[in-house]
Amino acid sequence: MRLRNIPRANEVIANSPMVIQEPEKQKGAWRELFKNDHPIHIEVGMGKGKFLTELAARHPKINYIGIERYTSVLLRAVEKLETQPENLCFICMDARELPEVFAAGEVDKIYLNFSDPWPKDRHAARRLPSRQFLERYDRILVQDGVVEFKTDNRKLFDFALEEVGPAGWKLELCTYDLHKDAELMKENIMTEYEEKFSALGNPICKMVISRERRTILEEVS
Amino acid sequence: MRLRNIPRANEVIANSPMVIQEPEKQKGAWRELFKNDHPIHIEVGMGKGKFLTELAARHPKINYIGIERYTSVLLRAVEKLETQPENLCFICMDARELPEVFAAGEVDKIYLNFSDPWPKDRHAARRLPSRQFLERYDRILVQDGVVEFKTDNRKLFDFALEEVGPAGWKLELCTYDLHKDAELMKENIMTEYEEKFSALGNPICKMVISRERRTILEEVS
Repeated sequence: MRLRNIPRANEVIANSPMVIQEPEKQKGAWRELFKNDHPIHIEVGMGKGKFLTELAARHPKINYIGIERYTSVLLRAVEKLETQPENLCFICMDARELPEVFAAGEVDKIYLNFSDPWPKDRHAARRLPSRQFLERYDRILVQDGVVEFKTDNRKLFDFALEEVGPAGWKLELCTYDLHKDAELMKENIMTEYEEKFSALGNPICKMVISRERRTILEEVS
Repeated sequence: MRLRNIPRANEVIANSPMVIQEPEKQKGAWRELFKNDHPIHIEVGMGKGKFLTELAARHPKINYIGIERYTSVLLRAVEKLETQPENLCFICMDARELPEVFAAGEVDKIYLNFSDPWPKDRHAARRLPSRQFLERYDRILVQDGVVEFKTDNRKLFDFALEEVGPAGWKLELCTYDLHKDAELMKENIMTEYEEKFSALGNPICKMVISRERRTILEEVS
């Protein structure tokens, strides 16, 4: 996403009731914020928020938290919202701080959509499906938690597939052309990127991976 | 592999001490044939047998069984052998019959190398890493058994990755350029195809997948 410096972004973000300030103070107590015990699903790199806003409308019994690093991007999401759904909030933060903001087992599902490919090899650890990030997700997800990842960037997708095994995760689902799968499309919500790129004929890749539960296995075998 | 009709092939195969006749009679008793209790590793679609012959020489405490459908191809493997290693034998059969030839848990590892891509969609079930074949492998492998698959055919490799999840297997390792991974290359034995295609600069893809042990997990959780 092209980033522009929007001078008023910092101020709007700091004052929006949708954006949680000092999120690390909420660690271990996110359900208290939502005043219910529903599952918590987060999107890392939420962009302008279309995906998460639609999800929140569709599933009122799930709490959604969108995470975005740039105030100028998060600004768009905040300004686009016509109402303030009770099961949705945003955090402006670097995703590397996830384990400081969520307690172990506090998150039920993580979405990654059209993440920055960081094409240079030396930046591999910055890619959101890298083993370094999988390790962070591992620290905040429930036992059977999953990560759902969509992209039209085939190189990033292939990279992610190479990370799954070494990271000790299990590949639950893998498709190189999501939009041709009628069953998966029933539940699919398109991001802004996805609408644009699939209209151009680019196939969209999707994977679902889950934490491997090797520890339990070792205990019984 | 280009197949030629070699009239003497049937006769040579029927009379070779290296080729097990009526292999279904050996079901559940393969270790008796080898007169030891070493692990059994099989290669499905062994071609001319270079890979398996080298493996057998390198690991005398593992029993190897090569499976090849065509007598004209197996003939090459038999004729190339200078000695008859005690830990190696061949079967001439269609791989769809694997569960009739091996008992549950009788096989420790399965190798698939440069398998026929069967490019037409309607032939997908004939591809050796298809979910239909994974189900067959599942029936003969030990609890923590693995399948190792190498190919330079990217479409076949991607197809296999799509099959892993629905088949309930776990992706342990995935690389799109095996020959650039010094650690993996230490143990790598090149097939005839691999030598030819990697010399042309084609990257070799490799995956290792293991049976998911969901049953055990459900028992304890």
